[in-house]
Amino acid sequence: MAAIAVDRERSAALIGRDIEHLSGAAYTRSTEAIRRYAYTPEYRNTLDWFAHELESIGFTVTEDAVGTMVARNRPPGEPSFGVGSHCDSNRNGGKYDGTMGVVTALEVCRLNVEHDLGLPLQLISFLEEEGSGFGQMLLGSRIIAQRVGEDDLRDRFRAVDDGRSFWEHAEAAGYEPARWRECAAVLDGLTGWIEMHIEQARVLQDTENRIGLVDAIAGYVHADVVVYGRGDHAGATPMDLRLDPTLVLAETAIELERLARAAGRGTVGTIGEVEVDPGLINAIASSVRFSLDIRGPLDEVYRGVAAEIAAFAQRAAEERGMRADYAERQALPATPMDDRIVGALEAAAATTGEPYRRMHSGAAHDTMCVADRVPTAMVFVPCVDGISHHPAEDADPADAALAAEIILLAIASLQ
Amino acid sequence: MAAIAVDRERSAALIGRDIEHLSGAAYTRSTEAIRRYAYTPEYRNTLDWFAHELESIGFTVTEDAVGTMVARNRPPGEPSFGVGSHCDSNRNGGKYDGTMGVVTALEVCRLNVEHDLGLPLQLISFLEEEGSGFGQMLLGSRIIAQRVGEDDLRDRFRAVDDGRSFWEHAEAAGYEPARWRECAAVLDGLTGWIEMHIEQARVLQDTENRIGLVDAIAGYVHADVVVYGRGDHAGATPMDLRLDPTLVLAETAIELERLARAAGRGTVGTIGEVEVDPGLINAIASSVRFSLDIRGPLDEVYRGVAAEIAAFAQRAAEERGMRADYAERQALPATPMDDRIVGALEAAAATTGEPYRRMHSGAAHDTMCVADRVPTAMVFVPCVDGISHHPAEDADPADAALAAEIILLAIASLQ
Repeated sequence: MAAIAVDRERSAALIGRDIEHLSGAAYTRSTEAIRRYAYTPEYRNTLDWFAHELESIGFTVTEDAVGTMVARNRPPGEPSFGVGSHCDSNRNGGKYDGTMGVVTALEVCRLNVEHDLGLPLQLISFLEEEGSGFGQMLLGSRIIAQRVGEDDLRDRFRAVDDGRSFWEHAEAAGYEPARWRECAAVLDGLTGWIEMHIEQARVLQDTENRIGLVDAIAGYVHADVVVYGRGDHAGATPMDLRLDPTLVLAETAIELERLARAAGRGTVGTIGEVEVDPGLINAIASSVRFSLDIRGPLDEVYRGVAAEIAAFAQRAAEERGMRADYAERQALPATPMDDRIVGALEAAAATTGEPYRRMHSGAAHDTMCVADRVPTAMVFVPCVDGISHHPAEDADPADAALAAEIILLAIASLQ
Repeated sequence: MAAIAVDRERSAALIGRDIEHLSGAAYTRSTEAIRRYAYTPEYRNTLDWFAHELESIGFTVTEDAVGTMVARNRPPGEPSFGVGSHCDSNRNGGKYDGTMGVVTALEVCRLNVEHDLGLPLQLISFLEEEGSGFGQMLLGSRIIAQRVGEDDLRDRFRAVDDGRSFWEHAEAAGYEPARWRECAAVLDGLTGWIEMHIEQARVLQDTENRIGLVDAIAGYVHADVVVYGRGDHAGATPMDLRLDPTLVLAETAIELERLARAAGRGTVGTIGEVEVDPGLINAIASSVRFSLDIRGPLDEVYRGVAAEIAAFAQRAAEERGMRADYAERQALPATPMDDRIVGALEAAAATTGEPYRRMHSGAAHDTMCVADRVPTAMVFVPCVDGISHHPAEDADPADAALAAEIILLAIASLQ
């Protein structure tokens, strides 16, 4: 791998400066948090700032038919390597989620010029990754991957703020949503794609690594279990005459933890929502609903856990004379990253002498949609205590600078 | 025990007739349910009906300073035996809870005349047992037992309907709440007290008994446990880096069931409220609050379970690196019934040839307040499937007639 003498301190200073700039009043709708989303003035300001920076280093900046930003240092049609992320935020967001990835991609583009590498690059900042505007996650990249239908855009996806359709808002902002199918062209000619993102968990921090090389993005099953018991008086009903559905919840929660641990290989299982009816201190519940979030990088493994816990809950209910219904809410398969790109990143990381690890991403990212058509990988940097989607979100620009260097080296090695 | 040739079928017909009459439009504020509470026209009509029936068999009917009805067949000051219950209802109530007890007490008074027994009787219908008017359970009997303070009545206890104070409502209804301390006199001269009530659970139905002889009313501990975990991303946080408080809830729920069963002797434990924060499918909970309702007829036993489960939850949280706080919300000791009266009821029940059992009451009743000063007991009759506080509440007047006969025989034997 060719050595490139990157000045990491200078990169870190630039990345830090840019992130602080983009947390200024012009770029957020809240004084308490970063809050920016599609078609707001603050989001427009953010795209304009990136466009200005990219144009100043020779990029041509365009936007697709709904507002995903695309900047190229080669004419359309010529092959290039993609870098980027998203620069919208959670409504109660921090400075780093998404935006640090775009700023780092910008730094990759700057280093390409600075070191006169001549790498063909395309920076993408996807529209509406967080869903803050229309309640739809990964919206820009799903439109590019054609994972939505026209009816979704015209009618079903509606603004959180005013209930008007995505279509209406896009048109009002000067876009042409009727040409949404043409957004697929954003990925044309990409020979590869690397997204940098904060980890949003604590694996890197707790294992003392500065860099995570993502080899898969987890798939997931989201489901609900409803256990039907019998609502009786909590004082007057002896223990052996009860049909208490909270006990099926309890047994299922413990079994889910056991199954996920036993499955290993990145499998996780969580009960995040619990709803007890009627929910009174002196009443045995008549029913309990709880959610299941089961994920992992290996489809057959986490799906096996989902099937086992569904069967377990039903059996546990039956053994107590009750009934449990399992209903899948949503499921998405895992997205493996491209071996060659991950390998190039690993080789590049090794040359830096800094601690890194291969890992999977438990969270969803735009890269899942890019991977439909382009060989992809992701690079994670630590965020303090894993806190994300919160104003307290914190990450180190020095880690992002290290990521920029590794991405640059990897792309260079792949040419 | 002297035999009294009670015509049970006739008693059952009268009790059934009276209960149906008191479910008519004049006696409920809802067309969907029985809904009557203090100081409403429907409650006034109910008291007036009972007063008329009692006066027609030679009773003198008065009301205490806030509206508990007292009917005597002896002059004040002379000893008498108390029977009765309450005739207010839950807001979404049925025909039987409370009212069947007053109607059965009325039938005891009628049988006393019919069979020319000359028993000295005092019928009491307590004000506001359900708390539908002012959100305060056992209000009339707590005033009689002086378990309230003047400030409660003047200011703290407020109408569910309009927020005005109990005091104001009582005065508007023509009562003299300023003389509330004199309500204690309701219990003067009582040599004993027996309340009949529907069971509100399914022990009698499931054990095929027609009569329950209550030897204790359960005491209880109401408490909350809050488990503090760490809110992390459900997808991105590996199983071994989690502090998931729902698992402490799960372990505690299973242990509470084990402890209550192991303690036996009528001990019950219930988790009826569960609150997960933030309660999102894709977020590991940052904290979980759940309620504990632990009861039993033996104070040291159910209190032992409460102490053990509090310690267990704290230990379970610590073992997982979390913290659990236990806070008692309210506690009330058990109320033992009077051996002599229970014994007299048991002897009377035995003479009827009908199936009965001794049991405790898991629910609270006005009798708890009477027991402060008067030897007491209660008689339960089955209600279908244990359903209560609901329009579907159902009970058999024939069982109430049997209860009336047993109460009459017991009082006669105690003279």
